[in-house]
Amino acid sequence: MIPRYSRPDMVAIWSPETKFRIWYEIEAHACDAMADLGVIPKENAEAVWKANDVTFDIDRIDEIERETKHDVIAFLTHLAEHVGSEEARFVHQGMTSSDVLDTCFNVQLTRAADILIEDLQGLLAALKRRAYEHKDTIRIGRSHGIHAEPTTMGLTFARFYAEMDRNLSRMRDARAEIATGAISGAVGTFANIDPAVEEHVCEKLGLVPEPISTQVIPRDRHAAFFATLGVIASSIENVAVEIRHMQRTEVLEAAEFFSMGQKGSSAMPHKKNPVLTENLTGLARLVRMAVVPAMENVALWHERDISHSSVERNIGPDATITLDFALSRLTQVIDKLLVYPDNMLENMNKFPGLVMSQRVLLALTQAGVNREDAYRLVQRNALKVWDTRSDFREELLADEEVRAALSEEEINEKFDLGYHTKHVDTIFARVFAED
Amino acid sequence: MIPRYSRPDMVAIWSPETKFRIWYEIEAHACDAMADLGVIPKENAEAVWKANDVTFDIDRIDEIERETKHDVIAFLTHLAEHVGSEEARFVHQGMTSSDVLDTCFNVQLTRAADILIEDLQGLLAALKRRAYEHKDTIRIGRSHGIHAEPTTMGLTFARFYAEMDRNLSRMRDARAEIATGAISGAVGTFANIDPAVEEHVCEKLGLVPEPISTQVIPRDRHAAFFATLGVIASSIENVAVEIRHMQRTEVLEAAEFFSMGQKGSSAMPHKKNPVLTENLTGLARLVRMAVVPAMENVALWHERDISHSSVERNIGPDATITLDFALSRLTQVIDKLLVYPDNMLENMNKFPGLVMSQRVLLALTQAGVNREDAYRLVQRNALKVWDTRSDFREELLADEEVRAALSEEEINEKFDLGYHTKHVDTIFARVFAED
Amino acid sequence: MIPRYSRPDMVAIWSPETKFRIWYEIEAHACDAMADLGVIPKENAEAVWKANDVTFDIDRIDEIERETKHDVIAFLTHLAEHVGSEEARFVHQGMTSSDVLDTCFNVQLTRAADILIEDLQGLLAALKRRAYEHKDTIRIGRSHGIHAEPTTMGLTFARFYAEMDRNLSRMRDARAEIATGAISGAVGTFANIDPAVEEHVCEKLGLVPEPISTQVIPRDRHAAFFATLGVIASSIENVAVEIRHMQRTEVLEAAEFFSMGQKGSSAMPHKKNPVLTENLTGLARLVRMAVVPAMENVALWHERDISHSSVERNIGPDATITLDFALSRLTQVIDKLLVYPDNMLENMNKFPGLVMSQRVLLALTQAGVNREDAYRLVQRNALKVWDTRSDFREELLADEEVRAALSEEEINEKFDLGYHTKHVDTIFARVFAED
Amino acid sequence: MIPRYSRPDMVAIWSPETKFRIWYEIEAHACDAMADLGVIPKENAEAVWKANDVTFDIDRIDEIERETKHDVIAFLTHLAEHVGSEEARFVHQGMTSSDVLDTCFNVQLTRAADILIEDLQGLLAALKRRAYEHKDTIRIGRSHGIHAEPTTMGLTFARFYAEMDRNLSRMRDARAEIATGAISGAVGTFANIDPAVEEHVCEKLGLVPEPISTQVIPRDRHAAFFATLGVIASSIENVAVEIRHMQRTEVLEAAEFFSMGQKGSSAMPHKKNPVLTENLTGLARLVRMAVVPAMENVALWHERDISHSSVERNIGPDATITLDFALSRLTQVIDKLLVYPDNMLENMNKFPGLVMSQRVLLALTQAGVNREDAYRLVQRNALKVWDTRSDFREELLADEEVRAALSEEEINEKFDLGYHTKHVDTIFARVFAED
Repeated sequence: MIPRYSRPDMVAIWSPETKFRIWYEIEAHACDAMADLGVIPKENAEAVWKANDVTFDIDRIDEIERETKHDVIAFLTHLAEHVGSEEARFVHQGMTSSDVLDTCFNVQLTRAADILIEDLQGLLAALKRRAYEHKDTIRIGRSHGIHAEPTTMGLTFARFYAEMDRNLSRMRDARAEIATGAISGAVGTFANIDPAVEEHVCEKLGLVPEPISTQVIPRDRHAAFFATLGVIASSIENVAVEIRHMQRTEVLEAAEFFSMGQKGSSAMPHKKNPVLTENLTGLARLVRMAVVPAMENVALWHERDISHSSVERNIGPDATITLDFALSRLTQVIDKLLVYPDNMLENMNKFPGLVMSQRVLLALTQAGVNREDAYRLVQRNALKVWDTRSDFREELLADEEVRAALSEEEINEKFDLGYHTKHVDTIFARVFAED
Repeated sequence: MIPRYSRPDMVAIWSPETKFRIWYEIEAHACDAMADLGVIPKENAEAVWKANDVTFDIDRIDEIERETKHDVIAFLTHLAEHVGSEEARFVHQGMTSSDVLDTCFNVQLTRAADILIEDLQGLLAALKRRAYEHKDTIRIGRSHGIHAEPTTMGLTFARFYAEMDRNLSRMRDARAEIATGAISGAVGTFANIDPAVEEHVCEKLGLVPEPISTQVIPRDRHAAFFATLGVIASSIENVAVEIRHMQRTEVLEAAEFFSMGQKGSSAMPHKKNPVLTENLTGLARLVRMAVVPAMENVALWHERDISHSSVERNIGPDATITLDFALSRLTQVIDKLLVYPDNMLENMNKFPGLVMSQRVLLALTQAGVNREDAYRLVQRNALKVWDTRSDFREELLADEEVRAALSEEEINEKFDLGYHTKHVDTIFARVFAED
Repeated sequence: MIPRYSRPDMVAIWSPETKFRIWYEIEAHACDAMADLGVIPKENAEAVWKANDVTFDIDRIDEIERETKHDVIAFLTHLAEHVGSEEARFVHQGMTSSDVLDTCFNVQLTRAADILIEDLQGLLAALKRRAYEHKDTIRIGRSHGIHAEPTTMGLTFARFYAEMDRNLSRMRDARAEIATGAISGAVGTFANIDPAVEEHVCEKLGLVPEPISTQVIPRDRHAAFFATLGVIASSIENVAVEIRHMQRTEVLEAAEFFSMGQKGSSAMPHKKNPVLTENLTGLARLVRMAVVPAMENVALWHERDISHSSVERNIGPDATITLDFALSRLTQVIDKLLVYPDNMLENMNKFPGLVMSQRVLLALTQAGVNREDAYRLVQRNALKVWDTRSDFREELLADEEVRAALSEEEINEKFDLGYHTKHVDTIFARVFAED
Repeated sequence: MIPRYSRPDMVAIWSPETKFRIWYEIEAHACDAMADLGVIPKENAEAVWKANDVTFDIDRIDEIERETKHDVIAFLTHLAEHVGSEEARFVHQGMTSSDVLDTCFNVQLTRAADILIEDLQGLLAALKRRAYEHKDTIRIGRSHGIHAEPTTMGLTFARFYAEMDRNLSRMRDARAEIATGAISGAVGTFANIDPAVEEHVCEKLGLVPEPISTQVIPRDRHAAFFATLGVIASSIENVAVEIRHMQRTEVLEAAEFFSMGQKGSSAMPHKKNPVLTENLTGLARLVRMAVVPAMENVALWHERDISHSSVERNIGPDATITLDFALSRLTQVIDKLLVYPDNMLENMNKFPGLVMSQRVLLALTQAGVNREDAYRLVQRNALKVWDTRSDFREELLADEEVRAALSEEEINEKFDLGYHTKHVDTIFARVFAED
């Protein structure tokens, strides 16, 4: 976790304080359930809640762990210091450390998912607003980085909206995948603990009981979760790359907001660099790098080995914190993005009229010219424009072979921009249908 | 694609013949829709169907492509050779190559998903059958590769069932994600083609229209699809690693079926090697390697660049063919797996009774011994068994400090295997609930 | 392996014919060495060479393999059909299949490395030629996609040269890493075969004996090899992305060669798309995806398991064939790249003179203006140019505060392009020093 | 970076204190060189060294950065607070931020490499010691997890030694790759700074001048560096997996040292879990995950974009800190590894004598039995041993068909363990040759 790429709410989920609090709740709820079953005395279960307002002393827990080399035992020892060792003696009975660790980890991932879902909703709101704002802002569409046909800036925002909306749906699925808990004992047989304990703890923590666990919750769930983060990160990169392209000096159709105090470069004061979206491109790589180790974690040996643990200690916080930050940063970038419609038109007209060549080709075909000839006619005039930046419409009007097929009016009509935007409303209706 | 790791049905999806057939259907259905709209003459649309029974000549298409360096134009030129160049002149009108290529790719991925869904269903059936067969077959559960507590072989099969059942659900989601088509023209604005054409073509091909496309269908869909394949592959590795462990000489609790003609090794005729599951471990890596490039494909430049294409030409067939083969191979392995219950018992008793130490620890605690003392008592006797392979139960019976807390009967009761299997039915009910 | 992205020489290395030929040579040379040691009769060793001119019948070998389910036994059986089963009975004596398979694989990788080394040399020659050709072709340097200071096109080629030269060096190291062989028997102890056999076979095949093998050659060597291919692929992407940027409509400083028969797009005949470098971007991803599985292959179980094998059957051919093709394609792109110096100047002057702001800033500082003031002065005039595309030099000349620090001559001097190119020869001398 | 998986020396390299100290040295040495060239006054260069004993105030620098949003400017501003703003006004003259940042990063990576080289040397010493200690400790070699032929524990250590020795060599190469610096100005042309400054700074910092830089040092160097870390990590996993296998209950040929205070599990006190090597398996995944993003960082736009920066802020510290910790932990594991030779013999004899089947097969062939018959004879007796755990030697002695080919003495001789260890000294001589 890099402090500069993190936000406090997500960081808090991964703090030792939060972790121990969740451990505490798991143990305390488990005691309640065991007491209800008559397995342990009611008063011992109640005693555990005496620590409900305690802020656990992390240094003390660490100290005990250095001796016992076991984190859960260290915590339980410390808990007994608050509850009383006699009262606490049924705590964790019949449970295994992983019951606590895995259920806690899934609580944390579920909470992280909640934040990421909110982030995506915020981003969607920004994209939608900008999409409608620029629904009719004409801009050249590009394939291969080369001018193709006109589109609108609103459609660009709208497609990012649709992509992020899919990501929202994926994130919700990923949350559902990971919101399970397991209190099933040493190898998952419930030999030493009743399944009712698991049900109670899960209900209290907003989880679903894992249908079958071993010592651990199966890691295919986590692999699917981190894979989803990787897909979302890739979409962030997609938007970021678009903006970086738009901001480059020769294009300059948009620019990240540039605050007055900010210096673009120590040496070149005029430079307005798309540093936020470049940063997002890198952050996307960071989130994505969690995917493969999460998948490598699936094949644990028998009922569990602990190879997954160090991986998750890292990617759990890092991938969620980085993605939260990235989504938030992207939302700000979208929100404040400077859009330059005039430059969009100027760019589109770099080779005047040439972007209409597809329409002219089609018109020639429809006028009865065969495909090969039509292609040749269009290419002939297009290459002139390419070389001399003359006006394509005028070249066509002056080409006798073209004129034999198309009238002046017919040619002029092909250069109407409205032709390209006539279905924008249809597409918007599709994209924003449910809102 | 490696021939030895492929099956014909999945391979067929990726043949040139299938591809051109799908292209043909896209173009023909598009003509129908355009004719319905009155954009092209009915007779031209009908003429295209003259080629409905044609098997396209792939060598001829390749020959044309070598000249035009454009695959879709090559196909259209060849199609015109069948339909007649005059009749064919409205084919592909207003469309862009990607309309054909991307819609086709998604048809192929959707069909591949159908096979993978069937594969998973077959695997689930095998796992379920073996789970019930060995529901009560006692086996030691292991954490860290070390004996922990008893479980049953049926639970092992059941957890793989539950994991693969989640994969089935993920695969269905992935199929739904990818079953979209786009016929939206050069930059996705429908400038030259009516959205109704897209709707008609998609309906005919079993797809949903992509709400907003550019020149291409957005690649976050494909990233999510291949990520799902990667998760499934990781689950395959999980099962494979379990079987490899079970077959190793010292464990020998299960073995892959060994056909009589097969030679295990050129040098050591007695060796029965788990080569199928080792192979599956490698195949899992192959499928998984498609995930990152699929994610790198998301950030295309502007309305599209073609960097994704070469990646997909590879991972499209390779990842689906390999996964299909792997699922099928795993199903056979599970189906025919030799299970050795006697060896399971022998292994469990390597250190007689030691695996019951957790129960004894618990019993001591419940009998009023404090946690630290109970731990010490259990550890003291356990280490004797560890060193001398004496019987843990007998050591406990002979330990006066233990006997002060627990009677002979109480100690003996702790070594009842039924204690560990009492919730197996509960777990089976959870796992196989919906069947 | 995708046929369209492959070249025959590299493909040939991975053909069954080549593989069986190498197997044959390994076995025949091993027999020679065993005969020299007196372990087997001379005449039996000599008899094996009777098959020296034989082209092995791959269908027949496949047929036998289907029965024996073991590829090396199938080959040996077929070899005996040529040599005579009596004469052939000492072939492979004391060896294990992996002795043949692993040594063969390393021969193939070594030969692949030789081709890749040649490819890199060809690419370096092209880059060097273009570097000198455009040593003084002025072009704006860009950071963050934003104009920074002038550089030359020759320096761009030169830095790609330096990068590819490092790759050549890495490739040579990788070749040395992988050029080992092992004929050490079942678990690498030489129990059944003398180390002298390994030495002889390796010498004949141009390999170094593996100092210590188990049943297999250790896979860290292969991991390092494929990691090197991944680095080279990433450099290819680096060059490809540069060219894609240069070719985009708004920049147009360079373009891939466009053959006359080629149609850029089915719909927009004027489009000249950088499809080769986009393709190279995708191919880079394909090569790179071999890196992680090659690393996952390192941790084989004990003296070997066969999980690596399916991975290598894929990435062995695929990564080397794709990289060979990519290097060759890139060499052609560089060789024929259309460079547009006029457009470079036009782009540089989009905001006239603004790229000299760093020099002016420095001059002001040197003239005694403090850093903050100098920054402010430069920024003030720069923003005017940014907004109105006026001439930066003229703005400065008209700014009294600037003129208080710098004379007209001093200001004019700051716009001399020679200032930026004065060390180009120094850099060229560094880069091309050894040639 | 996870505190529990880190060691202070490596952590210190990545502290803000170290970073700012290196920045300071770069700036101060650069001033010296500029003064020598007469570009700036000597006294200003000397003045910078006034801050030589200053510990920079990181909070203050952060405070300035929050305002300027530029880290290097923040540092320079703070430096001026120590040196005096008048005296400091030539600091950084003609340089660009990346000159400082990239050179610093490479200094840090070089120092990290130095620690990793030491780590590897420590690991090699431990492996060598254990190799000689167990040179003749007989142990069964296993392929596919199945008993193959005898080997020795010393050979196991020796092969890990050889692998780590290759890693040492790779690490030295990686260090040489990364030990470059660049002080080449805004786009690498040295327009504003003399190449002599770069030479001086690099010499003082133990670096080689980068032959050609743009604004940044080319990232193929870093890709190669992190790829090397990934290979080393994979080798760590290789050793770790071996030990995990050896420690599993059924094998128990070795075990991680178990300190007395340590509790293996909260529930099963007798369990001695290989948690260190399981942890190392996970740490290997963490290091390896840096490889792909480092490769994705290579293709920066034009003379640089800043997408690499966030990636490197993470993987720079994380991958080196984790690898340092892992190497150190592995060294301790090897150093203290408990080896159980008796268990090794017991395991080898699980199926008495069966592991000698390869020798018997060979003997039969050499005695004139054809391959197919010999195979059948060995297989027949081997399968008996497999089923009943009878003694293979005795079965052979009782098999008339075998006895027709081999005498009692000849059969007995095949069960001599010395046969398998006769080349151990040869292999040791190869592996430890240079020491």
